[in-house]
Amino acid sequence: MNRLEVTELIISQKLAKGVKWEDVAKAVGQSKEWVTAGCLGQMTFTAEQAKAIGEVLDLPAEAVTQLQVVPYKGSLPTAVPTDPLIYRFYELIMVYGTTIKELIHEEFGDGIMSAIDFSMDISRLPDPKGDRVKIILNGKFLPYKMY
Amino acid sequence: MNRLEVTELIISQKLAKGVKWEDVAKAVGQSKEWVTAGCLGQMTFTAEQAKAIGEVLDLPAEAVTQLQVVPYKGSLPTAVPTDPLIYRFYELIMVYGTTIKELIHEEFGDGIMSAIDFSMDISRLPDPKGDRVKIILNGKFLPYKMY
Amino acid sequence: MNRLEVTELIISQKLAKGVKWEDVAKAVGQSKEWVTAGCLGQMTFTAEQAKAIGEVLDLPAEAVTQLQVVPYKGSLPTAVPTDPLIYRFYELIMVYGTTIKELIHEEFGDGIMSAIDFSMDISRLPDPKGDRVKIILNGKFLPYKMY
Amino acid sequence: MNRLEVTELIISQKLAKGVKWEDVAKAVGQSKEWVTAGCLGQMTFTAEQAKAIGEVLDLPAEAVTQLQVVPYKGSLPTAVPTDPLIYRFYELIMVYGTTIKELIHEEFGDGIMSAIDFSMDISRLPDPKGDRVKIILNGKFLPYKMY
Amino acid sequence: MNRLEVTELIISQKLAKGVKWEDVAKAVGQSKEWVTAGCLGQMTFTAEQAKAIGEVLDLPAEAVTQLQVVPYKGSLPTAVPTDPLIYRFYELIMVYGTTIKELIHEEFGDGIMSAIDFSMDISRLPDPKGDRVKIILNGKFLPYKMY
Amino acid sequence: MNRLEVTELIISQKLAKGVKWEDVAKAVGQSKEWVTAGCLGQMTFTAEQAKAIGEVLDLPAEAVTQLQVVPYKGSLPTAVPTDPLIYRFYELIMVYGTTIKELIHEEFGDGIMSAIDFSMDISRLPDPKGDRVKIILNGKFLPYKMY
Amino acid sequence: MNRLEVTELIISQKLAKGVKWEDVAKAVGQSKEWVTAGCLGQMTFTAEQAKAIGEVLDLPAEAVTQLQVVPYKGSLPTAVPTDPLIYRFYELIMVYGTTIKELIHEEFGDGIMSAIDFSMDISRLPDPKGDRVKIILNGKFLPYKMY
Amino acid sequence: MNRLEVTELIISQKLAKGVKWEDVAKAVGQSKEWVTAGCLGQMTFTAEQAKAIGEVLDLPAEAVTQLQVVPYKGSLPTAVPTDPLIYRFYELIMVYGTTIKELIHEEFGDGIMSAIDFSMDISRLPDPKGDRVKIILNGKFLPYKMY
Amino acid sequence: MNRLEVTELIISQKLAKGVKWEDVAKAVGQSKEWVTAGCLGQMTFTAEQAKAIGEVLDLPAEAVTQLQVVPYKGSLPTAVPTDPLIYRFYELIMVYGTTIKELIHEEFGDGIMSAIDFSMDISRLPDPKGDRVKIILNGKFLPYKMY
Amino acid sequence: MNRLEVTELIISQKLAKGVKWEDVAKAVGQSKEWVTAGCLGQMTFTAEQAKAIGEVLDLPAEAVTQLQVVPYKGSLPTAVPTDPLIYRFYELIMVYGTTIKELIHEEFGDGIMSAIDFSMDISRLPDPKGDRVKIILNGKFLPYKMY
Repeated sequence: MNRLEVTELIISQKLAKGVKWEDVAKAVGQSKEWVTAGCLGQMTFTAEQAKAIGEVLDLPAEAVTQLQVVPYKGSLPTAVPTDPLIYRFYELIMVYGTTIKELIHEEFGDGIMSAIDFSMDISRLPDPKGDRVKIILNGKFLPYKMY
Repeated sequence: MNRLEVTELIISQKLAKGVKWEDVAKAVGQSKEWVTAGCLGQMTFTAEQAKAIGEVLDLPAEAVTQLQVVPYKGSLPTAVPTDPLIYRFYELIMVYGTTIKELIHEEFGDGIMSAIDFSMDISRLPDPKGDRVKIILNGKFLPYKMY
Repeated sequence: MNRLEVTELIISQKLAKGVKWEDVAKAVGQSKEWVTAGCLGQMTFTAEQAKAIGEVLDLPAEAVTQLQVVPYKGSLPTAVPTDPLIYRFYELIMVYGTTIKELIHEEFGDGIMSAIDFSMDISRLPDPKGDRVKIILNGKFLPYKMY
Repeated sequence: MNRLEVTELIISQKLAKGVKWEDVAKAVGQSKEWVTAGCLGQMTFTAEQAKAIGEVLDLPAEAVTQLQVVPYKGSLPTAVPTDPLIYRFYELIMVYGTTIKELIHEEFGDGIMSAIDFSMDISRLPDPKGDRVKIILNGKFLPYKMY
Repeated sequence: MNRLEVTELIISQKLAKGVKWEDVAKAVGQSKEWVTAGCLGQMTFTAEQAKAIGEVLDLPAEAVTQLQVVPYKGSLPTAVPTDPLIYRFYELIMVYGTTIKELIHEEFGDGIMSAIDFSMDISRLPDPKGDRVKIILNGKFLPYKMY
Repeated sequence: MNRLEVTELIISQKLAKGVKWEDVAKAVGQSKEWVTAGCLGQMTFTAEQAKAIGEVLDLPAEAVTQLQVVPYKGSLPTAVPTDPLIYRFYELIMVYGTTIKELIHEEFGDGIMSAIDFSMDISRLPDPKGDRVKIILNGKFLPYKMY
Repeated sequence: MNRLEVTELIISQKLAKGVKWEDVAKAVGQSKEWVTAGCLGQMTFTAEQAKAIGEVLDLPAEAVTQLQVVPYKGSLPTAVPTDPLIYRFYELIMVYGTTIKELIHEEFGDGIMSAIDFSMDISRLPDPKGDRVKIILNGKFLPYKMY
Repeated sequence: MNRLEVTELIISQKLAKGVKWEDVAKAVGQSKEWVTAGCLGQMTFTAEQAKAIGEVLDLPAEAVTQLQVVPYKGSLPTAVPTDPLIYRFYELIMVYGTTIKELIHEEFGDGIMSAIDFSMDISRLPDPKGDRVKIILNGKFLPYKMY
Repeated sequence: MNRLEVTELIISQKLAKGVKWEDVAKAVGQSKEWVTAGCLGQMTFTAEQAKAIGEVLDLPAEAVTQLQVVPYKGSLPTAVPTDPLIYRFYELIMVYGTTIKELIHEEFGDGIMSAIDFSMDISRLPDPKGDRVKIILNGKFLPYKMY
Repeated sequence: MNRLEVTELIISQKLAKGVKWEDVAKAVGQSKEWVTAGCLGQMTFTAEQAKAIGEVLDLPAEAVTQLQVVPYKGSLPTAVPTDPLIYRFYELIMVYGTTIKELIHEEFGDGIMSAIDFSMDISRLPDPKGDRVKIILNGKFLPYKMY
């Protein structure tokens, strides 16, 4: 059983049991964003966290062990995503990539926003003209080291 | 003079005059994110906005006209970006893409977050352990139409 | 059983039972275009709709459950389609893409035609010189938000 | 002066003179869709049509000659388009490609919708919830020859 | 059993029974070129034709049914073929593509040679310096429609 | 002046002088197919042939010299051609590639049809239902050497 | 059992029996280069040769039959090889490709070195500074046909 | 003047002066293979060698200086070469790549044939059935270091 | 059982037994870097080394035999790695590639750093501001041979 | 004058003046690795550093200004590098990528080695069997944030 099979098992168990990601997150005690990413094979759980997930989703011991191993990350099947929801984010990079770069450099100088020391928050923003998705990306600025 | 040449002219004029994107944005009267994107060839300005940019950056009339034409969008030279700052956002999609998909669908059902009825806000978050970049993505949720 | 397997099962059941897409659509109570897309793994059905499909095509309960989950969309195996019928539509984009862009922008300004708030109608157009395929694409215009 | 340069000249002349595609189409005496495609380097004009375009847009004789030569078609710089408006059409193929294939085959048998014996009509559909883009694709069905 | 599996079954049955493509073609009553293409998953057979193939190659009923379904066409695993025999034809397009284009346009004007209303004939041309392969491509010329 | 520039010069001179490929071929004394390929930068002319082309098209001495140099072959800008006329030939390989392979091997054994010891003939086939393009490919069969 | 499975079976049988490629070649009565290529799915054996290989490696009858069928050639999983030994040969083409082209054309005129009427010899060249690999490529020169 | 421009200058000067690569090689005092590779921008000359080339081809001082700088290597415009002569070598890797790997490893163990401590010799092999190209590749075997 | 399956078996056995790569390396008597690479299918073990690994990880005889066969190297599924840890090294090449080239050539002249006569050492560098990863690459310089 | 042109100017000025990267580095007062990367368009200099470079290489004021702007990073023309020296580093990632990943994760847990808070040191290691290149990569370990 490799990690990909664990991911597929988690998805089908979640469906069969009618559990929500929020429920899994609560059992783990971390945010729904980070826990979902881990369940989808992108993050690494501690022994305790993995055990909690195993209990919520009724996973075999081997799967619980696998959840504690650092995975080979990358959750999409193609370099340019075909799924419309995910593509919109790719499009934002295509359209706004240089804008983000200009504004971060103007504010912080040369460096990057970390994708590791990073958190994300996804929420619903009620709006009479149609509710909105609000996503907050929050990453440490890392300046290029001069040496 | 095509739009790409207008973009390059804007960048070199901005450098020569020591103007900041914030200054250009103020002249236009919109957010720095949207105005920068427009100056980098991704958005379309009204006649008045284009004229204001032309004055701040001392652009020729032909460039001011071009800024009012809808551009062929896409600001990056390769499908997978090579620039480290921009790549980190691509990496977020590779790692978190399926997570974002799961959580938005759990909350809203089938549909997407619009990249058109969309706004973005980039700011600095002071932090004693190192300041952070905070980016808020805000897009209307569009449900798939059943017909 | 993942969604791809559900799609394959639907195709083979439809063949074995001699059912037409139109028949499935009637059972669901929506257009043949939307229902076919859903059966091919691109749309999400309500519990009632999924149940109706399950009855028409004699699907197991697990498949009926899967039909209610939002799928990872993208129905083609390659970025440039090899199938001649599908390729012709890709060719239309290659040849007419900039034309469509010019004409929509001239009429509506900067923005896009939504592929989400969208419907499609495919029909036969009798013609003495050889019948014709008529496809109507109908999508909401979404103007770029200025902010 | 090659065809690409003629296209660029047409675009800048059109902008400078404030002419609309509809105006050019009227001068030619064909639809705005076909004429725009031709002006963007995808179709071939007769001597008379080319002359009319040359007059409307004040083009040099060499450009008028070039418009009568069959061009190497393909109007986009990348296999997967980056421009959001054009991408939406590509997305429709990714999502609906197999649906279109199934429904055309169910109606007509094996064959294709011609992209050559083909016409297109783009119009605005007023709608209180926001106007819509309506595009009619109309192509001859060509059955595969059995031999 | 999907169409790919039917193709593989046909190939192994043909090998086991020592049948030639010509023999299959005779049973079907069409050319060896069209029948082989159909057996390799690229064309659609009538019920009668499929039955004949089933008898010659001893195929199960499910395979005979599959042969009557329009397949997703495209017989090669990569965009640029690696097999030397097939590559030579790709090379001909790379080297002679613009030549073919020039000569057909000079003779017929703007349009294409149909790959649908099309037939092909492959034969041996005895030659004392080494026999030659002679391939006749025969497709209807389709002029671009002006509208 | 490199070969690409010679090709572009030939195309513009041919257009300006209203010369046909057939005329150029007659001056050279070879087929229109081979001569056109050479003029488009894919074949190598003898000194005498190059001189004849130079006279017909009024080329400078440097261009005449370049025509005698073996070119880097490959006449298309992308691996998968975007031009509809040329694409149809690519599609034939995608659809019929394995068929051609099977039939040549059945007739000749393992080997290839040469694309070097090769000739091509393009002609018009009058047909009441619409004229047809007839292309004869004629290449030496080269068996794989056993050693 | 397809040819790929035959190749894998040959490799594992060769390993289990401790046979060398040279031994297989001797049983066949041809060079080790050609026989190895055939065993790896790139060449076609006569009935007698296939039988000899079947005996040396203890293959089932079905595999022996498969070895007599012309395979779909191409032994590598990616267009640019990742294996360092094989990559070095790709690198030679990247670095020396134009050199080889210039020198063969200077010596022979326009044409190619056949990869079909071709043989290869791989041997060890003892050298006190470290033994060397010597590979002789030997292919018929094929001049482009003028027609 | 960058190295690419030096290469183009060398090619046009060589053509204008009617010099052969062998002549350039003699002036340099090394093999025609290595010298041609260097002139085509793949190797680095000493001051003396560069001066000799400059004299034979009448190059400006700046070009002579450039020939002494290590170039960014890679002489072909695409990952899969389109030129038929060069493609044949790529095809040899596609077809024989795993064979070469097997035979070198059987003889030498794990390691590679160096493409750096390497020489090549291209010559004509007279043959009554048509002359042949003989290419000897000669590279040091480098065993993988165990550490 | 092919080498890929051996790699997967090793990974799952290592996980099940709670063995560290360092432990495997000690059993083999070589560095942890080289031994891990071998266990992941990139290096070749002697009979004795393979036996030691088999004992530590409780592998079947067939796996032990496989470990002594030279593998087809290349450990990643895509040309541009998606895993963030591995991508950072790719990024270093994208950003620093030309720098490394310039500095090695300035110091050593034309040639390469061997990736075969090569060793690597990975260690932890304690640092109060956060521990660091230190990787030493050590490869023989190989000058291009002049011939 | 864009940054690419500045890089080209720096390279040609460095060549014309016979300056070494070490000399430029001394003028700047930082390491030769970082300064070379900056001169090649990958890092950003302070006003003072840029002025020092301008003096050493005799650059115009516009170039000195450009050196202070954060560049779009990525120094190579293709995703898989063709230059042999640079390719060897890519090969190391292909071969050792999973090894590096395993060993860093075993030592540090989930996270990455920073390519931003990073330094590099390239030096010559004298060795009687042939001098060696020693490269030390030194990057801060960044653990994935749990949130």
